Amino acid sequence: MSRTSSNFSRWKAASLKLVEAALAQALVRRSLEQPPEIVSLFEAMGYALLGGGKRLRPLLALAAAEAVGGRPREALPAALAVEMIHAYSLIHDDLPAMDDDDMRRGRPTCHKVYGEGPAILAGDALLTLAFEVLAEGLGRDPETARRRGLAALHLAQSAGGLGMVGGQARDLAFERQGEAVDGAMVRDMESRKTGEMMSAALVCGAILAGGGPTAQRTMRDIGLNLGLAFQIQDDLLNLEGDPAVLGKAVGSDAERGKAGFPAVLGVAAARAELAALTEKALAGAASFKTPGLRLTELIGSLVNRQH
Amino acid sequence: MSRTSSNFSRWKAASLKLVEAALAQALVRRSLEQPPEIVSLFEAMGYALLGGGKRLRPLLALAAAEAVGGRPREALPAALAVEMIHAYSLIHDDLPAMDDDDMRRGRPTCHKVYGEGPAILAGDALLTLAFEVLAEGLGRDPETARRRGLAALHLAQSAGGLGMVGGQARDLAFERQGEAVDGAMVRDMESRKTGEMMSAALVCGAILAGGGPTAQRTMRDIGLNLGLAFQIQDDLLNLEGDPAVLGKAVGSDAERGKAGFPAVLGVAAARAELAALTEKALAGAASFKTPGLRLTELIGSLVNRQH
Repeated sequence: MSRTSSNFSRWKAASLKLVEAALAQALVRRSLEQPPEIVSLFEAMGYALLGGGKRLRPLLALAAAEAVGGRPREALPAALAVEMIHAYSLIHDDLPAMDDDDMRRGRPTCHKVYGEGPAILAGDALLTLAFEVLAEGLGRDPETARRRGLAALHLAQSAGGLGMVGGQARDLAFERQGEAVDGAMVRDMESRKTGEMMSAALVCGAILAGGGPTAQRTMRDIGLNLGLAFQIQDDLLNLEGDPAVLGKAVGSDAERGKAGFPAVLGVAAARAELAALTEKALAGAASFKTPGLRLTELIGSLVNRQH
Repeated sequence: MSRTSSNFSRWKAASLKLVEAALAQALVRRSLEQPPEIVSLFEAMGYALLGGGKRLRPLLALAAAEAVGGRPREALPAALAVEMIHAYSLIHDDLPAMDDDDMRRGRPTCHKVYGEGPAILAGDALLTLAFEVLAEGLGRDPETARRRGLAALHLAQSAGGLGMVGGQARDLAFERQGEAVDGAMVRDMESRKTGEMMSAALVCGAILAGGGPTAQRTMRDIGLNLGLAFQIQDDLLNLEGDPAVLGKAVGSDAERGKAGFPAVLGVAAARAELAALTEKALAGAASFKTPGLRLTELIGSLVNRQH
């Protein structure tokens, strides 16, 4: 293992520890001394938010803060917010009225454990909490208020009807209507569904750490390229991966007619696009010079993952 | 009609015109030149957001701005945000997994028209859009950023797991489990479900127009009292009102075991509590002197409504 990789592993472990503790704390301190039905709501939120996951988006937010020369801790509110939005989106996507998934990360999905109504509410509360943690602790420092406000704007745009939710709406419609779907349509859909929130993680992390407009634009491009690369990798793993490692059945996406990249482009073209997108994301990260090293290594570890 | 009432009617009509135009504009300008599935998502959002309703919360936000000596227009982002959150909450509350309502305001509910999955997404997108409109147009003015950030914090707290969503979670649990529900439990549940967002409308309206901590506290109290008063009025109308005016069946709440105030306290005690809460809300509004007149008249018009 090279020196850099060992540094990266330590950074990643420390970052994950910071994020996990802060996520748990955000729920725990709110649900203290509440009536049982509210405690139960926060349990459902915790089941989804604290039940594992790669914490990819929070890591991107922290790495972005370093890349613009700031301290990772400054990006922590963004790291928590993007993960809360990711967790809410998984709860709602898994619902019977949406993708109708019973299992996620090798466990029953939130609505299988808590019921559909409570799962919808847990998702709503996590989405709302994301904006609460971004707006918390503003104090009287005008520069902090400006950064947080700008981050909230980017987060809302990336998560909303033209971003992630819009991507899910297209995905749902493609699946239901058996519409003829081409490469451009899948690219647009996945860019909204996955790319927007990866962009938001990077852009918001950079903003909170003092990154200016140029850094924000570069971060957005990295996020969109990385999001598509990540999704293609996901699709390829779903086609070819080991179910024990994946935590879900191989080929399960194709079976229910989900329009993934390999299905639309063919496996070889999907692999080529994955390589091209990865290269673009890495070039963006490299433009930040030395502080971008962790971002570079993080991108590398994502597109080479096995699950 | 007294001179004051005529002034109030003109103010209300002008305020409603401002709010309706801005709500429509917020959706229209975003859905231009989008793919059909995104346009359809925004149609579902518009069906819920622009399909009538009293616009009570936006009016409260604008009246609060005047009460603290500011201009109503300053409170417009708060007015739009609270109405978007109100609209999302109705979409999600009406879902089969929640209250399972087919009709709302005399029309089929959002999920009856667009399907359950799209309705869930339309709600998610409206909730997200609320925080987007609050964070928009921050520019470089630090005082604006501070006010918007503080308003976003209050809005998220009132709308989230300890506020409106928490109230709906309690309501859902009370209904499902046939739990023994007492007056204090109903009060807490309704305070979260209805009072929190009325408070948020007043508090956020006041904050955006420059209201300080004392004004914010008074506004919060008015909102909580008004919210409970409004809910008791709602319950009484549901028991005794005219279905043609109400837009839903009389007695429909009692039939499915919803724990309302009259059911728990008895009709006479509910009427007495309505009067006491109204008096408290009016006393709060009166503390703002002359600029609070519209707020006073608005409160009066709400607790004396017939639908």
